[in-house]
Amino acid sequence: MPLLVMKFGGTSVADLSRIENAAKKVQAEVARGYDVIVIVSAMSGETNRLVGYVEGTSKLYDAREYDAVVASGENVTAGLMALRLQEMGIPARSWQGWQVPINTTSAHGSARFVDIPRANIDAKFAEGFKVAVVAGFQGLSAEGRITTLGRGGSDTTAVAFAAAFGAERCDIYTDVDGVYTTDPRIASKARKLDKIAFEEMLELASLGAKVLQTRSVELAMRYKVRLRVLSSFEDTDENSGTLVCDEDEIMESKVVSGVAYSRDEAKMTLVTVEDRPGVASAIFGPLADAGVNVDMIVQNISEKNYGNHTGAVTDMTFSVPTNQVARAQKAMEEARAAGIIKYDELIADTDVAKVSVVGIGMRSQVGVAAKMFAALAAENINIKVIATSEIKISVLIDRKYMELAVQALHDCFELDKA
Amino acid sequence: MPLLVMKFGGTSVADLSRIENAAKKVQAEVARGYDVIVIVSAMSGETNRLVGYVEGTSKLYDAREYDAVVASGENVTAGLMALRLQEMGIPARSWQGWQVPINTTSAHGSARFVDIPRANIDAKFAEGFKVAVVAGFQGLSAEGRITTLGRGGSDTTAVAFAAAFGAERCDIYTDVDGVYTTDPRIASKARKLDKIAFEEMLELASLGAKVLQTRSVELAMRYKVRLRVLSSFEDTDENSGTLVCDEDEIMESKVVSGVAYSRDEAKMTLVTVEDRPGVASAIFGPLADAGVNVDMIVQNISEKNYGNHTGAVTDMTFSVPTNQVARAQKAMEEARAAGIIKYDELIADTDVAKVSVVGIGMRSQVGVAAKMFAALAAENINIKVIATSEIKISVLIDRKYMELAVQALHDCFELDKA
Repeated sequence: MPLLVMKFGGTSVADLSRIENAAKKVQAEVARGYDVIVIVSAMSGETNRLVGYVEGTSKLYDAREYDAVVASGENVTAGLMALRLQEMGIPARSWQGWQVPINTTSAHGSARFVDIPRANIDAKFAEGFKVAVVAGFQGLSAEGRITTLGRGGSDTTAVAFAAAFGAERCDIYTDVDGVYTTDPRIASKARKLDKIAFEEMLELASLGAKVLQTRSVELAMRYKVRLRVLSSFEDTDENSGTLVCDEDEIMESKVVSGVAYSRDEAKMTLVTVEDRPGVASAIFGPLADAGVNVDMIVQNISEKNYGNHTGAVTDMTFSVPTNQVARAQKAMEEARAAGIIKYDELIADTDVAKVSVVGIGMRSQVGVAAKMFAALAAENINIKVIATSEIKISVLIDRKYMELAVQALHDCFELDKA
Repeated sequence: MPLLVMKFGGTSVADLSRIENAAKKVQAEVARGYDVIVIVSAMSGETNRLVGYVEGTSKLYDAREYDAVVASGENVTAGLMALRLQEMGIPARSWQGWQVPINTTSAHGSARFVDIPRANIDAKFAEGFKVAVVAGFQGLSAEGRITTLGRGGSDTTAVAFAAAFGAERCDIYTDVDGVYTTDPRIASKARKLDKIAFEEMLELASLGAKVLQTRSVELAMRYKVRLRVLSSFEDTDENSGTLVCDEDEIMESKVVSGVAYSRDEAKMTLVTVEDRPGVASAIFGPLADAGVNVDMIVQNISEKNYGNHTGAVTDMTFSVPTNQVARAQKAMEEARAAGIIKYDELIADTDVAKVSVVGIGMRSQVGVAAKMFAALAAENINIKVIATSEIKISVLIDRKYMELAVQALHDCFELDKA
């Protein structure tokens, strides 16, 4: 029997009528001849309620108990979804993480999959059950404790099950109807993509596109799980939404598939650091140790005998998430106090935004960067930092130009045209 | 290390501040040198919310899924209680039914204990944990599914753990401060008992005293678990509440320990049934098959050749819970239609109440019934049905006299005096 994984997020199971609505989508796939593994999140608001209880009880909470409390939200939805499917005449059974079991590491709050043995669920399918409803976001540690997977954990659960059970596809039902060339709230010409390559989706996800969580896309790419993003709130069929797949499945790629942006970006500059081998690691080592996620890095041209410095000196610029600026400053000051690095000044600019173009077509196409920079120049937008990867070009610009830049780039690469 | 079981019901853990209050009571016992197993119910209102979800999803719900959903309420409280104890510096760990494991039968919704292996929890105590917080009301079936125990399940869980772990005592914290000679709302002279025998408590519980559930008292009696009922909302010490214990622990018993009552009682009379061997089983067999809980039974004196009947005939009177009258009527009509029994009429009187006096002292004392009937006669209260057991005398009377009867009996047996 071909098998499908279907995942419903919190807003898709927010109340009993939405659970019913989701169950109808499962029913349609069963009618098409699939066995289905359904992954459910907690009813929306429920996880926040439980987290509130935990934080109200203990500020520095034991993550094992946090996980035990918070995972119960998904268990409730799993049971209710199984009941709803039974009401529709579909043999269904709910599964909590420990019942499958979903074996994970013991890193409570951010556990990773170890393995998902198929035997228990396969046995139920063999008995005639058509649907296994699995509580997402959770697992079981080797110590027999409940773990949770951290943000986006239910998407990741869905992909992991699709990989473990060799599913034909993993459908992620959410509150948007697919992946767009850019945010439609910013560019009204934004167009829904029928297909997007894993690598592109991964870049978009890590750039802040909220449709799919980075980790679930990584996992899908590694195990070649065809991932479909589609809406819970619309009528859907086999062709709905956006398919995230291997690039081989995409006949003709455009050079650029999408434009992404992030307001949550700050530019930091260490003024006048020594320009010598090892200085980059002396800077970014302490930042990494402090848990700062450095994104873009630019080293300015070196100048000799600058100010009262002897030897080669330079400026080092990098970007970090806005909420990590204070942490980054503290790490740099401590490194300077400890004699690990020298610098004159640390300047933080939080009034910036990052805009990126993403596309696997770039790999075989030259001139993409030049075209991007020209489009920004035509709007008089000054570029502060540039970073590139094989399939992405990102720039930091003044925040006030962000929307303008997104629209200009969307137009320049003709993303409104299929 | 001596071990104590402490159980907190839904109102005792209704919110985070009450959980904190309960945790302080646990802290006090740990300070006295005990290892403690805490059994918790769901936060009050929570189980109703979850049951509402289930019933809103599926009217004829699958009890396996009902149990999976509903048991999550206790899991949340268990985690929160463990966190609160940790905040107080007490090493504590939460336990869900499947983690202990609490092995039960597969009778979902009314499962019974099979066994509670000590190894996992004992290992944690050996590691230095002082408290195991166990989610009450739930267990694990041999099929690996979550079960629930039915009404009063958390009390029963507490007693079962006390028996399995050889606890010195099982303290049931609730919203009353002990067991009273009768309901203080009816008789202002009602007095809290320091001790009461298992058998007496069992009679009182089955007569509707809401302090403890019948099944938990039965289990305590069978395993000689000393049970203490005391208040969550008052300062308590070693002498608070009421101890339910073996009668050997009670130095001097009064003849009568308490007066119980029930409004939830109906009197049914089958008029003119045959008086022949086997007729009682022909009546009460169908009632039992229909799930009717018959309590008191009285057979009137037989009369020969009554009306148009030949042979011996009689009237058969019995009492049933008010909400089972319709079911009892249906069972009787079907039995008559099937030719199993014959009767002229079935009269149901729902305007009655049951009043009982209970005391192990009755076993060695004569004249208790006579004294009871005289007290009722002195108030001109007519007795409709009488039933007795070794330690209990119950009467059915007109409902309007119920309060008067309770007060008269409380006075006549001098229950206000210690």
